[in-house]
Amino acid sequence: MAKEITSREDNYSQWYTDIVIKAGLAEHSAVRGCMVIKPYGYAIWEKMQAQLDKMFKETGHQNAYFPLFIPKSFFSKEASHVEGFAKECAIVTHYRLKNDPDGKGVVVDEDAKLEEELIVRPTSETIIWNTYRGWIQSYRDLPIKLNQWANVVRWEMRTRLFLRTAEFLWQEGHTAHATKAEAIEEAKTMIGVYSDFVQGFMGVPVTIGTKSDSERFAGAVDTYSIEALMQDGKALQAGTSHFLGQNFAKAFDVKFASKEGALEYVWATSWGVSTRLMGALVMAHSDDNGLVLPPKLAPIQVVFVPIFKGEEELSRVAEKVKELKLQLEAKGISVQFDDRDNLKPGFKFAEHELKGVPVRIAIGPKDLEKGTVEIARRDTLEKMYVEQSAVAERVEQLLIEIQDNIFQKALKLREEKTTKVETYDEFKQVLNTKGGFILAHWDGTTETEERIKEETKATIRCIPLDGEKEEGKCIVTGKPSTQRALFAIAY
Amino acid sequence: MAKEITSREDNYSQWYTDIVIKAGLAEHSAVRGCMVIKPYGYAIWEKMQAQLDKMFKETGHQNAYFPLFIPKSFFSKEASHVEGFAKECAIVTHYRLKNDPDGKGVVVDEDAKLEEELIVRPTSETIIWNTYRGWIQSYRDLPIKLNQWANVVRWEMRTRLFLRTAEFLWQEGHTAHATKAEAIEEAKTMIGVYSDFVQGFMGVPVTIGTKSDSERFAGAVDTYSIEALMQDGKALQAGTSHFLGQNFAKAFDVKFASKEGALEYVWATSWGVSTRLMGALVMAHSDDNGLVLPPKLAPIQVVFVPIFKGEEELSRVAEKVKELKLQLEAKGISVQFDDRDNLKPGFKFAEHELKGVPVRIAIGPKDLEKGTVEIARRDTLEKMYVEQSAVAERVEQLLIEIQDNIFQKALKLREEKTTKVETYDEFKQVLNTKGGFILAHWDGTTETEERIKEETKATIRCIPLDGEKEEGKCIVTGKPSTQRALFAIAY
Repeated sequence: MAKEITSREDNYSQWYTDIVIKAGLAEHSAVRGCMVIKPYGYAIWEKMQAQLDKMFKETGHQNAYFPLFIPKSFFSKEASHVEGFAKECAIVTHYRLKNDPDGKGVVVDEDAKLEEELIVRPTSETIIWNTYRGWIQSYRDLPIKLNQWANVVRWEMRTRLFLRTAEFLWQEGHTAHATKAEAIEEAKTMIGVYSDFVQGFMGVPVTIGTKSDSERFAGAVDTYSIEALMQDGKALQAGTSHFLGQNFAKAFDVKFASKEGALEYVWATSWGVSTRLMGALVMAHSDDNGLVLPPKLAPIQVVFVPIFKGEEELSRVAEKVKELKLQLEAKGISVQFDDRDNLKPGFKFAEHELKGVPVRIAIGPKDLEKGTVEIARRDTLEKMYVEQSAVAERVEQLLIEIQDNIFQKALKLREEKTTKVETYDEFKQVLNTKGGFILAHWDGTTETEERIKEETKATIRCIPLDGEKEEGKCIVTGKPSTQRALFAIAY
Repeated sequence: MAKEITSREDNYSQWYTDIVIKAGLAEHSAVRGCMVIKPYGYAIWEKMQAQLDKMFKETGHQNAYFPLFIPKSFFSKEASHVEGFAKECAIVTHYRLKNDPDGKGVVVDEDAKLEEELIVRPTSETIIWNTYRGWIQSYRDLPIKLNQWANVVRWEMRTRLFLRTAEFLWQEGHTAHATKAEAIEEAKTMIGVYSDFVQGFMGVPVTIGTKSDSERFAGAVDTYSIEALMQDGKALQAGTSHFLGQNFAKAFDVKFASKEGALEYVWATSWGVSTRLMGALVMAHSDDNGLVLPPKLAPIQVVFVPIFKGEEELSRVAEKVKELKLQLEAKGISVQFDDRDNLKPGFKFAEHELKGVPVRIAIGPKDLEKGTVEIARRDTLEKMYVEQSAVAERVEQLLIEIQDNIFQKALKLREEKTTKVETYDEFKQVLNTKGGFILAHWDGTTETEERIKEETKATIRCIPLDGEKEEGKCIVTGKPSTQRALFAIAY
């Protein structure tokens, strides 16, 4: 096979990169830290977007668009935002090029220096709350529930395709409410939407929880996150939803006249998921043969590969394929007929496995005689012979089975790789051997959290929302704790 | 009425701005030249995007995503691109902020200066062709037919909402072909797609043509454009499609092995439309009461306004509305029920007129008795009484009629405002009186074109593709000409 990929055992990190590049999802660009999302990768992202957008609209949100640039001074307005948020960002200082007087090419025109530098948005709370000030006068203007699909830039030194790139695509929801309770409810609703999406469509089980003080979003009162476990036992934060209190309203002076006529600061939330989800999707399900896609997000759900010698055989096979393809398409299934005549079936099989096409159907002259086809499912690599008359129904069923199976498989892995520990020694031992999620008691202090991080590299991923309340003692300090926190080494 | 708008006669330019702002389409942001696209405006843009995206996919294109930033040196690679393309752009020079040592706020960290400046993309030919070099080896890799939905930045000194902004949203198609003929065919196909969209969905008639040398895209061999006429007699370029020859392939060294084994440069096209179309949509159809939207792009196609006194009446009316709403929705029509209880019907009528909702249905207790409703169409402001049992069918029909009527109205205006002239005096006189499109013979030289532009401000919008071939004499120089060019003063 032409496009060999590194096995997970040999080098998990290289395995991931191999799949992303060789399955044609994305590649590095000429611009440091920025990626090119290739058509096949983008088609998956489009399916994610479409489903999320639908879920946002069903929960009462509308889309809008705010500027790419944010005046530098805006970042200083919310104290903890500027303190906590990374200062690595792309800064626009000039607005004109000119021909190089010394020869070829172009140079920056120093006469065209901006009075105030502009920051390429790393996130848009500041510019949006500055805008909301003009939109909100009374309680009748609330709630505002907006979402934006956009590109953002955070200057990262060490980048990895999809998981951490300087520029990435995302959506950011920004809502404004009259009451604290309503804003908290919104933040929780949206982390629930993310959980439903990641579990129900990506087939990746997640734990919903709140972040500890040190992992919270800069400017938030509470950050809810969904945490997923990858095959190598590392955790990946797949989405966050923030209850921002009145912090941004105060920073940008956004008040409203309440029903009772009082002037109050507005309550806020923000929430986002990004192309990082593509990384989670790849790492959660794929194997040493390549990508494994959940049928609900696969751009091509079924591929037909004809087995033939010569044009006459191809044309006979093609006739049957067209008939079956129509039957499948009538059920809303996306189908490709791979009739390229310069490649052998074996090569095609490997390529479609690499690309994670959930169902492959091979059909040749012998199948025409017998009235059957050979169906291979990508998740288990199992093959089965199916009567041609039963193909449409069987495939429809199979897509549901595959969607469910990859979720169950990931769930089983997570269960195996989740350990309750009672002592710090046990904690370290589990981390060094099986890795994964560790549920342990913690005294709630940043100090202890920092110490654990320094000594083990593990961080608190979240305090699970549905976590059992139980009396316990912090594994490090022995101080009392009422609930276990979820620890892991994270991406 | 609360939101009075300036009349077209008083001040056409202010009328436009009033509609954009007061109908809630967009507003200026805190960042010079950048706009905020508000939810109602964005909802229209989403409908445009969805339809265009469908048409791109139907013509064999896929979406992808390329970096926001382009290394400065890339712009120097294609000589006419850098010469002809405006050098006003946003330039990223640094990648880190730091706390201001002298006090509050943040300042640019001078230690974090980029080795090579990055340009925020004004268009993506350069970065895309630099990427295509890695994707194309043989004729089997061709054609590549990609589109990108993205934001771009061109530093404009004088901006107008939607029509000319520093940042705008657009799509840019970039295709690579093995032959010249195929690339030309692609460029023509896409200008045809644009024409079909603008006429069929936006209801705006356009003329397809080629650009003269001076108006051509920097780096293109031929630029096709669609040109529309606004109500004030000015032209607006609504979309362009470029045959780029081998210019970018040569600049970025993109060659392929042909079927015959020869190494050849790849042929290219690019094509784009932007949020500028929103400006065209507003200006083409709207009147002194506000926006007029074509039903195919209206986020809300039908609004119900209840006429009532007290809750009991409202609840009786609401029951009937819900029934009718369901009937309409079953036909795929988007319906809003405006049951706000703090606003008078007259206020609501004006607001929905301002927002261009194609069909308004008023219904009160008397209508319940008589079994009728009052339907008002936005385009003609006509009112009619319709039996409740006939509402769904009548409205479905009406939406088709409105879509057709606004196109016909715009077409009639264009016909009235298109004049054939034979002399330069006549040309000037028509420009100064009725304005609009002028069809005149031109000798084909940039010199003459420049003179006309300097003396009259009119430019050659295009040389119409379906223009009649006829012998004539240039209105300025008297030199022979074989076809009339389309002149106008343009946005």
